[in-house]
Amino acid sequence: MAGEQDKKRTVVSIYGQQYTIVGRETSQHVKAVANLVDNKMKEINKLNPYLDTTKLAVLTAVNIVDEYIKLKEKVKQLEKLQEKEEE
Amino acid sequence: MAGEQDKKRTVVSIYGQQYTIVGRETSQHVKAVANLVDNKMKEINKLNPYLDTTKLAVLTAVNIVDEYIKLKEKVKQLEKLQEKEEE
Repeated sequence: MAGEQDKKRTVVSIYGQQYTIVGRETSQHVKAVANLVDNKMKEINKLNPYLDTTKLAVLTAVNIVDEYIKLKEKVKQLEKLQEKEEE
Repeated sequence: MAGEQDKKRTVVSIYGQQYTIVGRETSQHVKAVANLVDNKMKEINKLNPYLDTTKLAVLTAVNIVDEYIKLKEKVKQLEKLQEKEEE
């Protein structure tokens, strides 16, 4: 198990605000994640320019969870196919 | 293609705030997505009780994108395995 001392601090900027993300991921991974969130927020802001930042962030999370659930379905199907071929 | 008339409006509650989600997904799917976001926000709030709602929502999105990217990697690996078996 990795200890506290293995945790990295990565400072990222999302929608004009700085966040310090603490975790075991590489800074490269954290920055890629932050970039994706930042882009998604800007994209949703273009479609709904009157949303305040909190609602915009919540709707960004909703958007990503939607894609996450769909991807999870795909994983299930791929795993089922895998099992069939292994029979 | 589905037209405008096929779009559903689903009202959901996330972190004490109501949102009207418009889209072609079933209300059941939209509610499941909203529930997941709501739970994640409450979970992150417990770990960071002093964050304001905007930062909490942004960090929730960061958290979900992190899981999304990891799941995407898994899909890639499963698809590679699939291709090998089809050779």
